[in-house]
Amino acid sequence: MHIPDLPDMLAAEVRIQPYIHRTPVLTSSFINSLVGAELFFKCENLQKAGAFKARGASNAVFSLNDEQAAKGVATHSSGNHGTCLSYAAGRRGIPCTVVMPRTAPQAKKDAVRGYGGKVVECEASTTSREMVFAEVVTETGAEFVHPYNDPRVIAGQATCSKELIEQVDNLDAVIAPIGGGGMVSGTCLTLSNLMPKVKIYAAEPEQADDAYRSFKAGHIIADDAPNTVADGLKVPLKELTWHFVRSHVSDILTASEDEIIDAMKLIWKRLKIVMEPSSAVPLAAILKNKDVFAGRRVGIIITGGNVDLDKLPWN
Amino acid sequence: MHIPDLPDMLAAEVRIQPYIHRTPVLTSSFINSLVGAELFFKCENLQKAGAFKARGASNAVFSLNDEQAAKGVATHSSGNHGTCLSYAAGRRGIPCTVVMPRTAPQAKKDAVRGYGGKVVECEASTTSREMVFAEVVTETGAEFVHPYNDPRVIAGQATCSKELIEQVDNLDAVIAPIGGGGMVSGTCLTLSNLMPKVKIYAAEPEQADDAYRSFKAGHIIADDAPNTVADGLKVPLKELTWHFVRSHVSDILTASEDEIIDAMKLIWKRLKIVMEPSSAVPLAAILKNKDVFAGRRVGIIITGGNVDLDKLPWN
Repeated sequence: MHIPDLPDMLAAEVRIQPYIHRTPVLTSSFINSLVGAELFFKCENLQKAGAFKARGASNAVFSLNDEQAAKGVATHSSGNHGTCLSYAAGRRGIPCTVVMPRTAPQAKKDAVRGYGGKVVECEASTTSREMVFAEVVTETGAEFVHPYNDPRVIAGQATCSKELIEQVDNLDAVIAPIGGGGMVSGTCLTLSNLMPKVKIYAAEPEQADDAYRSFKAGHIIADDAPNTVADGLKVPLKELTWHFVRSHVSDILTASEDEIIDAMKLIWKRLKIVMEPSSAVPLAAILKNKDVFAGRRVGIIITGGNVDLDKLPWN
Repeated sequence: MHIPDLPDMLAAEVRIQPYIHRTPVLTSSFINSLVGAELFFKCENLQKAGAFKARGASNAVFSLNDEQAAKGVATHSSGNHGTCLSYAAGRRGIPCTVVMPRTAPQAKKDAVRGYGGKVVECEASTTSREMVFAEVVTETGAEFVHPYNDPRVIAGQATCSKELIEQVDNLDAVIAPIGGGGMVSGTCLTLSNLMPKVKIYAAEPEQADDAYRSFKAGHIIADDAPNTVADGLKVPLKELTWHFVRSHVSDILTASEDEIIDAMKLIWKRLKIVMEPSSAVPLAAILKNKDVFAGRRVGIIITGGNVDLDKLPWN
């Protein structure tokens, strides 16, 4: 598989520019004084469709040639990637099919449909998902866009830290949550090429710490049905993302469920933004490891804002 | 009383620049398509201390001469002005006293104290508040900074729409919530001087529609104990703010409690920001009066984000 590189990221930047927001960077003096560091929150929760995944999905959709595009795109995801792929396909005016378990939240199905995509339901097992997905691809000829193990997707996510280093000078470190590793890989791609002195950290829930254990073991370990409030981070690393994590990440830090919820509420309260539990994991990890970041200028990727306002984890 | 003018606003802009954020402007394609207009949300909920009132309070505090500053500032407010005055006084390193009813929410008292200010409690009546406040001023010699009927405060609030017109070209209209009228007056000050063709609208809860009734009657009418979820908007117009409203506002539009809560949830969900019910009144009014704004480019001031996350109005 092609490992995406700097020219891929720079091409993605130009390609997706009409379809994404240049998201703002927010700061909080209060949180800085609590942590003893200067934190710069890159707000991808304010991105199109509410998540950084609009970058990778747009890059994949707009790199297709017209013939392939006419057949559409397809993915399996009950999270932000499905919504964002539907968003990007809608902007190009091509079909998009998202295979999702019957049991996925109604809001997630509605979000895909809201951007014009089609939801095809499967059972909650991997076998059913793979079978249903294969049928979709056979019938439509749609291009599979994996949520993260796809060079086009990683090159798209990499544009986020390109913006961040243009918006904030002299960063010492950047930290992002890690699930499948798409955002972390994109961050590695950009920073290792353009700002190699900036340290890259990943943050993960203790209750879904497969990336942490993979990192320590030196090979990919997948969790068996992890359970965490940070539901965007349950998926395992794959070949491409493991390559970037292994090569460029300084450390992976973990946080407990309570620490994640406390950090989430702190960010809502102080930064006045709506964001997912997954996005709170980096701040939770920083608060737990203050010595690592003391006195540093640290970029934090707030990855998404698609949360059920009727079911907040502190209620 | 001096009516603040363009030079006052321009002086305020320079004076407060080190103490405030240049807040971002956010957009939502979804809300635009719902409304049939292009809306630009100026996010003062992301302002220092969580509200636009940091602008006016900073301007008042930093215009004091050293002798007066040494004696400190004082106000009566159980809302954002008290918090923001405490914030600004803290930045200058001078005392700040806020008189607040004993019954005010603990969070509001904590917010004032969090920035270094002192809370002095009174009973919930106007008589008690005035008596206690007079005592504070006599004892300390502190400078009274009214929440809105103060030229320094209005000149500070006026810097918000100065930023907005620099951030968004070719606006047709700007709409802001109206309580005492400080933000609306500041908007009038700036736009009537720099962009006189931009129409200015104010939005008010039906259940606290004193500004609406004043506007229609041609003189100030104060409500008797209004009750609304938009608790920042219960206060009446005063001499200075009435001057601006009467002279420059095109219309005042109202919305019901349910419409305000629906608009609030819509903004949280789509723009991914945490903001107060008061800040939702303009969108509620626009959704109710689509014909007035159809096809226009409209700036909306999101005034503040200090809301109790444990007591959201849709829960």
